[in-house]
Amino acid sequence: MRVEFINPFITSLINVMKTMAQLDLQPGKPKKKLDSLARGDVSGLIGMVGPQTKGSMSITFDQGLALEVMRRMLGEAPDELNEEVTDMVGEITNMVTGGAKRILGEEGYEFDMATPIVVSGPNHSISHKTEGMKLMMPFTCDQGRAVIEICFE
Amino acid sequence: MRVEFINPFITSLINVMKTMAQLDLQPGKPKKKLDSLARGDVSGLIGMVGPQTKGSMSITFDQGLALEVMRRMLGEAPDELNEEVTDMVGEITNMVTGGAKRILGEEGYEFDMATPIVVSGPNHSISHKTEGMKLMMPFTCDQGRAVIEICFE
Repeated sequence: MRVEFINPFITSLINVMKTMAQLDLQPGKPKKKLDSLARGDVSGLIGMVGPQTKGSMSITFDQGLALEVMRRMLGEAPDELNEEVTDMVGEITNMVTGGAKRILGEEGYEFDMATPIVVSGPNHSISHKTEGMKLMMPFTCDQGRAVIEICFE
Repeated sequence: MRVEFINPFITSLINVMKTMAQLDLQPGKPKKKLDSLARGDVSGLIGMVGPQTKGSMSITFDQGLALEVMRRMLGEAPDELNEEVTDMVGEITNMVTGGAKRILGEEGYEFDMATPIVVSGPNHSISHKTEGMKLMMPFTCDQGRAVIEICFE
């Protein structure tokens, strides 16, 4: 996988969070992921398959940030990670991947998206099992942290 | 999604667990999944994309069963869910999906597999976010429980 592949996902997440929840995510430093230590409370995962490559992407949120996004999108939020919240995380995962797909398509990299899966549970960790390089990008805002991880073979 | 789609995954998981770990999984009763209550300690997830459909599949193991599979495959196992275990769960996810892909391909249903993602964390829950029906199949053996969930649009 090329390092440039992560940029469309970063751009797309920032756009989606700005547009949907009026939140300004500050990207940290992208890095190679050498372990499965990126932990969070709710994660949207999606598989991608194209003629040139295949891979997976995840977006992991702290519970506090996920609930704040709910509050800003819907005007209210539950006290915990219920199905409404996982639906929203699945939708965000779809939107972010769709945005990245459009950008990468313009650059000649085509892929199809599988359907998203959302995992919830305090402090879970995620391991993308690809042969290729794994990149992660942390984001922060006043309401909490998010992490994108992306891996293409 | 058709109910018959789950059978190749069931057959394939039973075969893989028998061949790789000499474990006889007993399938329970398949059912429609109406919530995200299937919980476990380590899950392999994979996306699938084909011309007719797309979807996702997960296999969730109790920690005890995952460690027993390690013990039987490698002769020893760690005390907890480390990267060796998540690698094995990713490999099992690939093998089970590959087996089901072969069977479904013979029936005229083609799909490509994304790369697997493994989630670990005690008692996490999984929600497949598809428009289509979600089916789950529980398995038991003396060493613990496993659950397959599969969803195609």
